[in-house]
Amino acid sequence: MTQFINAKEDLVTEALDGVLRTENGHLARLDGYPHIKVVTRTDWDQSKVALVSGGGSGHEPSHVGFVGRGMLTAAVCGDVFASPSVDAVLAGILAVTGKAGCLLIVKNYTGDRLNFGLAAERARTYGLKVNMVIVDDDIALPDLPQARGVAGTLFVHKVAGAMAEKGEDLESVTKAAEQVIDGVISIGMSLDTCKVPGSPKENRIDLGKAELGLGIHGESGVEQVDFESAQQAMTMVVGRLDAAMKSGPYVALLNNLGGTTPLEMSILAEELYRSKIARNITGIVGPAAMMTSLDMQGFSVSLLPFSEEIKAALAAPVELTAWPGYKSVGTVDIRPLPDGLTPIQPMPSVHPLHRAFIERCCEIFIAAEADLNGLDAKSGDGDTGSTLATASKALIQALDRMPLADLTQLYRAIGLELSQTMGGSSGVLLAIFFTASGDASAGGKDPVSALKAGLRRVQEVGGAKPGDRTMIDALEPALDVLIDGLEAAAKAARKGADFTATITQAKAGRATYISESKLVGHNDPGAEAVALLFEQLVSSGS
Amino acid sequence: MTQFINAKEDLVTEALDGVLRTENGHLARLDGYPHIKVVTRTDWDQSKVALVSGGGSGHEPSHVGFVGRGMLTAAVCGDVFASPSVDAVLAGILAVTGKAGCLLIVKNYTGDRLNFGLAAERARTYGLKVNMVIVDDDIALPDLPQARGVAGTLFVHKVAGAMAEKGEDLESVTKAAEQVIDGVISIGMSLDTCKVPGSPKENRIDLGKAELGLGIHGESGVEQVDFESAQQAMTMVVGRLDAAMKSGPYVALLNNLGGTTPLEMSILAEELYRSKIARNITGIVGPAAMMTSLDMQGFSVSLLPFSEEIKAALAAPVELTAWPGYKSVGTVDIRPLPDGLTPIQPMPSVHPLHRAFIERCCEIFIAAEADLNGLDAKSGDGDTGSTLATASKALIQALDRMPLADLTQLYRAIGLELSQTMGGSSGVLLAIFFTASGDASAGGKDPVSALKAGLRRVQEVGGAKPGDRTMIDALEPALDVLIDGLEAAAKAARKGADFTATITQAKAGRATYISESKLVGHNDPGAEAVALLFEQLVSSGS
Repeated sequence: MTQFINAKEDLVTEALDGVLRTENGHLARLDGYPHIKVVTRTDWDQSKVALVSGGGSGHEPSHVGFVGRGMLTAAVCGDVFASPSVDAVLAGILAVTGKAGCLLIVKNYTGDRLNFGLAAERARTYGLKVNMVIVDDDIALPDLPQARGVAGTLFVHKVAGAMAEKGEDLESVTKAAEQVIDGVISIGMSLDTCKVPGSPKENRIDLGKAELGLGIHGESGVEQVDFESAQQAMTMVVGRLDAAMKSGPYVALLNNLGGTTPLEMSILAEELYRSKIARNITGIVGPAAMMTSLDMQGFSVSLLPFSEEIKAALAAPVELTAWPGYKSVGTVDIRPLPDGLTPIQPMPSVHPLHRAFIERCCEIFIAAEADLNGLDAKSGDGDTGSTLATASKALIQALDRMPLADLTQLYRAIGLELSQTMGGSSGVLLAIFFTASGDASAGGKDPVSALKAGLRRVQEVGGAKPGDRTMIDALEPALDVLIDGLEAAAKAARKGADFTATITQAKAGRATYISESKLVGHNDPGAEAVALLFEQLVSSGS
Repeated sequence: MTQFINAKEDLVTEALDGVLRTENGHLARLDGYPHIKVVTRTDWDQSKVALVSGGGSGHEPSHVGFVGRGMLTAAVCGDVFASPSVDAVLAGILAVTGKAGCLLIVKNYTGDRLNFGLAAERARTYGLKVNMVIVDDDIALPDLPQARGVAGTLFVHKVAGAMAEKGEDLESVTKAAEQVIDGVISIGMSLDTCKVPGSPKENRIDLGKAELGLGIHGESGVEQVDFESAQQAMTMVVGRLDAAMKSGPYVALLNNLGGTTPLEMSILAEELYRSKIARNITGIVGPAAMMTSLDMQGFSVSLLPFSEEIKAALAAPVELTAWPGYKSVGTVDIRPLPDGLTPIQPMPSVHPLHRAFIERCCEIFIAAEADLNGLDAKSGDGDTGSTLATASKALIQALDRMPLADLTQLYRAIGLELSQTMGGSSGVLLAIFFTASGDASAGGKDPVSALKAGLRRVQEVGGAKPGDRTMIDALEPALDVLIDGLEAAAKAARKGADFTATITQAKAGRATYISESKLVGHNDPGAEAVALLFEQLVSSGS
């Protein structure tokens, strides 16, 4: 089993009930399971022309997804890729058809034609007005006597649906549907076959190949081609369409055959808008999965000659989420980047004491590079020392342009400098620490309280708490007692750093992924760096 | 290349432009490609709280698909599965944030937390009010210190979006978002890994296995389990959720991780509604692809405690198609089958001449069984004779209950009988022939004109024309001259049937798929049956 199904026999009825459970008040089904699988609108008064479509399942959201105000009145569902029976179609017709009559919209496959056709005959013997149109939009083989009906069928559903909703009579609705069928052309391309439930997957399309001109039942495409890129794929598809297009504007329908990601579909849309027929494409429906072939990784493009009437019908509101709506194709609205991305450099200022202190801190880190790297190698990738040393060197270089005399601005400036020169998560976290400290200082906090506020923000953003084996375990106790002097802070930092050697379950940062035995007995390198900093500051008498 | 992309470096920007080409007037992007990929609303006046989200790409329609009135104000997009940079996030914040401030909605991944966090700090230094919430809804590992943010994020977007749209202030919107985050739980399951563009596919999950408790970046699930069915899969997922649920009603969000077909998703929905937590599930969002992991064939279920306020926020209208809406979970509305499916049997009547004629026709087909099978074996599956003989025997059996004296009713009754006893396409086509003939007879046509009308309907429904190597090639010329007597009809039918041996390109029916060399020199078996019928009727003097 490679699919989220239960028994193959139940898959369509279970799926339909799954849909219908949340559609009470809008959709109902007839009591004919398992053979008769018919879904109808419940808000239907038979004063308007009924639209009945359907066919095999496996094309979802077709057809049940398009049953609703403004599109289909009923859908008759067969098993996967199998036409529904005459009785099922007849049940659908009889359930929704009143005096205004009924239009059957049928895709050009023999089984569907015959079963819908005979059901129509039987319905007519009851005196019902039933018309039938056959959609044959596939242009994969230009001289195929029986072109298939594929995703272009959606145009028929929508245009006929808008007409029927307006109260047009059966002949007008039928004529409109036939005009759409006359004009619409489609072709598809796929990179892989689909997985038919209960059958082994047919591995027909080799990696690097694509099939052009395929149907919606997993049948082979007209030809296999080498696949290079989204651009080349769309160029091939557009080439076939172009040969069958008349002059004048068109509406495109870009259909996901099921397994193509939205990213790919958007790229294909972009390629369509860049293609040689782009200037003929006024509007688009999609990209969206509308007429799928199970999970096939492919797409199809359908084109319908544009007119204001067609646009109005396609844009008419519907009460269903499967119809992606009509959109005009235009340009990309590009706005300038906002001011402030390039930070305004603060006015440099002079403050020998601050400068000396920062230089001393940086030198301590530079000197500790090898030791900290060695410690980090025991539980990480061994670069804590280098990361701190590199950032320290850059910070020393930057001191001349720092607002050294204004502590608020200085905190922020250090944060900005670190965000630009210090790599990895630790760089971002230290940048947050200093920037948030500057913020708190601007809010009136004293220098130490500001640093504590900065550390709280680091915890908030980084998600680490004390005891999680991070630099917080040394920095927080140090800041807590910094008011009592550097020596107290150094002792507290050392105690915190040494405590990290006993924490065997890291809860944040990279060490989360390291086994217990590798952690025990070694201080966290970040916490150790903090302890070293304070200790060295004390010993050098700063 | 196994995906519809061009260069890997361009895939996100091309996809974004593909979306934006049809969103002019609603969405714009900042002029920062390739590093800054920010999409914003254009109908935005900064008097309301801005909602900014984002993260790595590959989760479409998240996040750009949810930018629009009633949900997000801007989305900041990274490359596939990679966090956007601090500058990109900052650009997004600066582009949309006014006096009302901005809420950042961030999924709990280290990169996103840090980049969004630092960008928030930098934005605050400009005096902007910026709050940030971290979504951590994944319950895959109950004691994971850092639970991931997955599809439950959509609840945050929607609830915060509805609040912001109403004009609530930043603190209220933030509080509402935090309440959702406190309550929401999610877990996912997948049958396969996803294909990351530019990387070979990791075949980590064997056929028949499933991963439970996975994230949205293709990372391994918490455990691999044996996969049996949709029901078993949902039972496992529900079991994990149940353990984390409190009492009271919930809203579910059923998310397609990308590569699951709508059929499967509907079945999974049905299993959810049948599960042991079903009575707690008041409403649902989806099933739909909302937070995907590229083309992963999996799903996730998120649960949020239900309240009338939550329902109102989830049901509030939005101007975007990616949000599937809120639906109440109820029962399936099942309607009785319409009357008329079991056809009312016509009143039997007696007419010796009609009865003898029909019996004679049937005997001719019964006698010709072997010959027609032999002919069909040359171009088909060799069952034309048997199909006709079986139907003929059934028809003879049915004569006692036939309305023999009323030609209109008799035509229809034969059509009905054939539709029930004769297999294959030919059975349906002959049923259509007689039913439509009865229809035409009811419309006032004489018996032969009625049959000609029936044949026209067969052509319409079946799609075959004269010259397509079908029974039409014999039947049409025969009916054309039947007014001149059976002998003329027999000659015309024979000429038509023999002509089919020269048609080497079948255009309808099964023979379409047969090579030319197999067809030439052999009459079409259907046409031959018609010719034999008329010839034998002449020779037996009917």
